[in-house]
Amino acid sequence: MILVIDVGNTRIKGAVFEGPILLEIFVFTKIELQKNIENILKNFEKVSDLVVSSVGDVEKLSFLAFENMLNVHFISNTDPFPFQNKYATPQTLGIDRMVLAAGATLQFPNQNRLVIDAGTCVTYDFIDQDNNYLGGAIAPGLRLRYESLHNYTAKLPLLALENPENLIGNSTSDSIHSGVVNGLVYEIDGFINEYRARYLNFIIILTGGDTDFLAKRLKNTIFANSNFLLESLNQTFQYKIKND
Amino acid sequence: MILVIDVGNTRIKGAVFEGPILLEIFVFTKIELQKNIENILKNFEKVSDLVVSSVGDVEKLSFLAFENMLNVHFISNTDPFPFQNKYATPQTLGIDRMVLAAGATLQFPNQNRLVIDAGTCVTYDFIDQDNNYLGGAIAPGLRLRYESLHNYTAKLPLLALENPENLIGNSTSDSIHSGVVNGLVYEIDGFINEYRARYLNFIIILTGGDTDFLAKRLKNTIFANSNFLLESLNQTFQYKIKND
Repeated sequence: MILVIDVGNTRIKGAVFEGPILLEIFVFTKIELQKNIENILKNFEKVSDLVVSSVGDVEKLSFLAFENMLNVHFISNTDPFPFQNKYATPQTLGIDRMVLAAGATLQFPNQNRLVIDAGTCVTYDFIDQDNNYLGGAIAPGLRLRYESLHNYTAKLPLLALENPENLIGNSTSDSIHSGVVNGLVYEIDGFINEYRARYLNFIIILTGGDTDFLAKRLKNTIFANSNFLLESLNQTFQYKIKND
Repeated sequence: MILVIDVGNTRIKGAVFEGPILLEIFVFTKIELQKNIENILKNFEKVSDLVVSSVGDVEKLSFLAFENMLNVHFISNTDPFPFQNKYATPQTLGIDRMVLAAGATLQFPNQNRLVIDAGTCVTYDFIDQDNNYLGGAIAPGLRLRYESLHNYTAKLPLLALENPENLIGNSTSDSIHSGVVNGLVYEIDGFINEYRARYLNFIIILTGGDTDFLAKRLKNTIFANSNFLLESLNQTFQYKIKND
């Protein structure tokens, strides 16, 4: 059994896999990190490997504390990946984006793939049908948009994510919901349309914390899977074992 | 002669008008407020009225200091406006959005109007052809998107606005430029398309600090005028004099 952990910008997600099968998912904050992992390991005693992907560096010691119990692996950009990395600055390519690209490459062979991860940020990652990773885009996610409207202006309130009832917001709250949610939906559909205009034989994968909220609002047909990053982490690790 | 002043979230813009003619534009920060207005009044001795629109309240005293020299007017939502305000929460409708709506109503009669103000925030305001102001949307502007990506994530750099060279950003910087700039362009075109699908006989006005940068990238035909808010302030004041 393998425990994979993704340390994101705002929260930590983990999953226990038995081969390719996802057994259970965990979401927690950075403060409770060590205690939560202890609990998971108590419930899943057969876990032999802990596989970590992290956008920051601070939590490394917390994971290394488990080295006496199991094998700890940090996925890094020097690991083997199933695509050719054509990024001009591979040292600044976030490991989460590399893992997503690996998952897309392995799960959807012989086609052009666009992975959209809608979390704190919305990242777009494109891997062509010849398995070249070409890069993509990074934009603020839903939560960041709500927060920045409040934090950088004189009078706008901080709102929680909500479905905008209308295109035309009829109050300040409705205007913000329309601007943030409809805005991001138009943005994602716009990106997809531009990619579709340039590449045929295309799959679009939507993942991240806002997957379910966004998926039903998009005009384009997509493959929505909020656990795609966790599954990709497991696959990236399996690929590493075979090719290291 | 009239000096109009718009106090925005990040900067102050002013203009001197002789009747409908814009004579000169000034841009400065809040710190230099009083000194700058003094300088303007030295150069334009015929200014008889100072007309102020402000999204916050803090600068009011600085303007009242000029009351012994000229008439000081604060545009407020209790002034007469040339549209029916159908907003459900008129007390929270930003005065800048009301002024923009007034300018659009007066400058473009008998048609549906969408005003897009691309500054710190991007505001969308819709006034139908029967002069009903219905509301719109509020989303983060270009600068806010760059800042929020840096301030709320572990590793993304703070970048200055730049034209993305490609749809597919091939480095972390290019990915951010594509996500922020292409993202907002797709968002604005998406909003315009949705409005166009619902309303005929339509004019779209783009204004705000990022007007020139954005105008050439949009697919839709728009009327771009970075001074539209200042012109609208002058028109709102003229309308107030006639109808008060």
